[in-house]
Amino acid sequence: MRNSWISLFVFLSLGAAERADLVVSAAKAVTMDAAGRVIERGAVAVRDGRIVAVGPKAEIDRRFRAKKRIDRPDALLAPGLINAHTHAAMSLLRGIADDVPLQTWLEKYIFPAEARNVNEAFVRAGTRLAALEMMLGGITTYADMYYFEHAVAEETKRAGMRAVLGQTVIGFPAPDYRTPQEALAGAEKFILAWRGDERITPAVAPHSIYTTDAATLKACRTLANRYGVPVHTHVSETKKENDDAGRAHGMTPARYLDSLGFFSGRTILAHMVWADAEDLKLLEGRAVGIAHCPSSNTKLASGAPNYRTWFQFRVPAGLGTDGPAGSNNDFDLFEEMDLASKLAKVSTLDPTVLPAQKAFRMATIDGAGVLGMEKDIGSLEAGKWADLITVSMAAPHAIPAHDVYSMLVYSLKASDVRDVVIGGRVTVLDRKPQTLNSASVLREAERMRARVAESLR
Amino acid sequence: MRNSWISLFVFLSLGAAERADLVVSAAKAVTMDAAGRVIERGAVAVRDGRIVAVGPKAEIDRRFRAKKRIDRPDALLAPGLINAHTHAAMSLLRGIADDVPLQTWLEKYIFPAEARNVNEAFVRAGTRLAALEMMLGGITTYADMYYFEHAVAEETKRAGMRAVLGQTVIGFPAPDYRTPQEALAGAEKFILAWRGDERITPAVAPHSIYTTDAATLKACRTLANRYGVPVHTHVSETKKENDDAGRAHGMTPARYLDSLGFFSGRTILAHMVWADAEDLKLLEGRAVGIAHCPSSNTKLASGAPNYRTWFQFRVPAGLGTDGPAGSNNDFDLFEEMDLASKLAKVSTLDPTVLPAQKAFRMATIDGAGVLGMEKDIGSLEAGKWADLITVSMAAPHAIPAHDVYSMLVYSLKASDVRDVVIGGRVTVLDRKPQTLNSASVLREAERMRARVAESLR
Repeated sequence: MRNSWISLFVFLSLGAAERADLVVSAAKAVTMDAAGRVIERGAVAVRDGRIVAVGPKAEIDRRFRAKKRIDRPDALLAPGLINAHTHAAMSLLRGIADDVPLQTWLEKYIFPAEARNVNEAFVRAGTRLAALEMMLGGITTYADMYYFEHAVAEETKRAGMRAVLGQTVIGFPAPDYRTPQEALAGAEKFILAWRGDERITPAVAPHSIYTTDAATLKACRTLANRYGVPVHTHVSETKKENDDAGRAHGMTPARYLDSLGFFSGRTILAHMVWADAEDLKLLEGRAVGIAHCPSSNTKLASGAPNYRTWFQFRVPAGLGTDGPAGSNNDFDLFEEMDLASKLAKVSTLDPTVLPAQKAFRMATIDGAGVLGMEKDIGSLEAGKWADLITVSMAAPHAIPAHDVYSMLVYSLKASDVRDVVIGGRVTVLDRKPQTLNSASVLREAERMRARVAESLR
Repeated sequence: MRNSWISLFVFLSLGAAERADLVVSAAKAVTMDAAGRVIERGAVAVRDGRIVAVGPKAEIDRRFRAKKRIDRPDALLAPGLINAHTHAAMSLLRGIADDVPLQTWLEKYIFPAEARNVNEAFVRAGTRLAALEMMLGGITTYADMYYFEHAVAEETKRAGMRAVLGQTVIGFPAPDYRTPQEALAGAEKFILAWRGDERITPAVAPHSIYTTDAATLKACRTLANRYGVPVHTHVSETKKENDDAGRAHGMTPARYLDSLGFFSGRTILAHMVWADAEDLKLLEGRAVGIAHCPSSNTKLASGAPNYRTWFQFRVPAGLGTDGPAGSNNDFDLFEEMDLASKLAKVSTLDPTVLPAQKAFRMATIDGAGVLGMEKDIGSLEAGKWADLITVSMAAPHAIPAHDVYSMLVYSLKASDVRDVVIGGRVTVLDRKPQTLNSASVLREAERMRARVAESLR
């Protein structure tokens, strides 16, 4: 009874304020919630890593007593961007081979460069460089597929990012494991070490149907289902892949995977450029999503997907940068949004097929859906992790501001990102990295560059 | 005799140094000269607005006594970028209408917005905003087509930019002139006022074959030839334009223009998306160039050109941003280079068709060729105007640095531009505008935005 009176007293004396660790406010909050709310002079209150309230700044300020505040009256506040497919550590191979056919690129450059350079130290340095670039450009979550994923996990966690990390399983000797069996055992160890982590979701990543046999593909699925983790793979990236699958299996890559029971759990399908309506139809209602990589598909001349078919079916599609070693040269989701939207228009000759708001959905809430994390990230809503960004509208290219989605997709740049918060932790403040030492990350990357260049002589 | 002795004394005492107004040096100088020289630790010496020497920094430092020095050891030094087709003042209409079909866009948004808002004050404010954004992104020269070009000329000159400015002549009442006859008279006055100016080249800009009749098209050419100035027009932008020309004239737009004697002088052709081999062939050896606008052609769903055909003939092709009111939403030639290169690859399914070095040529020396200014700008060579930029390589997306052209086209951004020199005058220094008051330009643009929004209600 006495305690209650004291509580009431404290409650009244503080003006009814609830505790918040952080309040972030801006000119507009672009929530990406189901109602598509854009809140003028909006704010988000954060406690214990999660969003506890979203609303007008005046209301949030009245309701919360915040330990820390970030107020950006000339910026947008938005959910952090989700990079649904990449190979982060390939940052160190950026620009080693461009403008060459896919087979030359792989066989003359990428495979030799990887064979001669990729080890745990390389992966750590590459992941740090990638995490730095991604966060500075507003990416808060990424889905990776590479080698030594336990090292990727440690570096990602240290940088404060969120990620779904797929340990590669491939049918030939890889930098970390010599056989698919070893890789599967390694993947299991990796899952056991990281499952349940708040930031890191371990995953199994069979490379593709053309590098991994049926038994291994099935074993990957079985392993992932045993622990309830996702599978991440490349599917229908090129016409050649589809043609080869037709010859070898008498069906498309997606239908071949389905025949193996591959879609019996959460699956991230990178590319799907050459998928047809029947492929999409069979994925509806499953825990499957597409990671669309427009830079990669254009730059490697893989092709443009049939966007009309894609959007006809209820299969979530997010955006990925792919790796930055030829299939793209950076990790920039602002560019991917812009490019996806333009590529969709020019390839269908229909300017309405992928409007700006849809492109921004792909980079946020739909990307979350692809990873199976739509209840936890992808929008500014109470209960979700506090993964959010502010994007400055002060540059000349941001003025005048008529429509927020048009701005985010067609005008604003990764360089306009000002602050980044992941799980309530400020990882970038006023464009300055808070969790990584930029100078040392870049110095280390430059040192690696010399070694890579030497190895390719 | 006595004077000579004094001169010799001064000459010897200064260590044989020649005078320079400015020396700019960087990690590498990407010259874009005919030999494609990239000079390690390169420098450029500038005197009286022109480049007087290009070479290794050590050599330039020995040879020149500079009044002012800009040294960027972690940047690239390159020619300023050339935006070969735009409508600068439309910056104020940025984002008023996106993701709608071309006819809706024009008739429901652009034409009403222009009719209700475009006057001389609007054009001045819009040009200032555009010049600010263009210079911050490394553009030193642009080719414009709009209304009130005398006002555009004054604002461009004040901002310190170089431009080819086309006074619009169109077959219906425009914001500045009610009839083509009035517009032609206005264009002549404009030419007389500005011809011979070091920075501004006046031009005549009949809008297109579908908005301007044959007599007016001929009159534009005749007027331009009388004063030796360029003509700037839109050609073969959409399939509809080509289909309509086939019905009306029994030939393609380019062949129709040729039948009018339109290519008898310098001509800048924007778009040419639907041009065929015969069109290109008839342009060879003429003073004609193409301004390719990949953002516009994709965003408005106009189509992708047949790049193989384009590059088969000796017709220079540069890059343009087009206007930022729906056909693009910014003036960013880094994005246009990247997009042109990717669009070429995906539309031909050939990753070798438009390599990075060629894309950078399009944005520099080939763009100069389109404007007929290849002897004066477009590369770092002694005798040319000192139009140059430095581009920082310090951001994470610029590291590691394996190839300069790949970096410039696929990794570096407009936001990496650090310094801009035009005709020897420093217009941007360490990312800060030196010739425009950024705050007042942006404030004015924001005020105009409110008026535009109001007018569209």
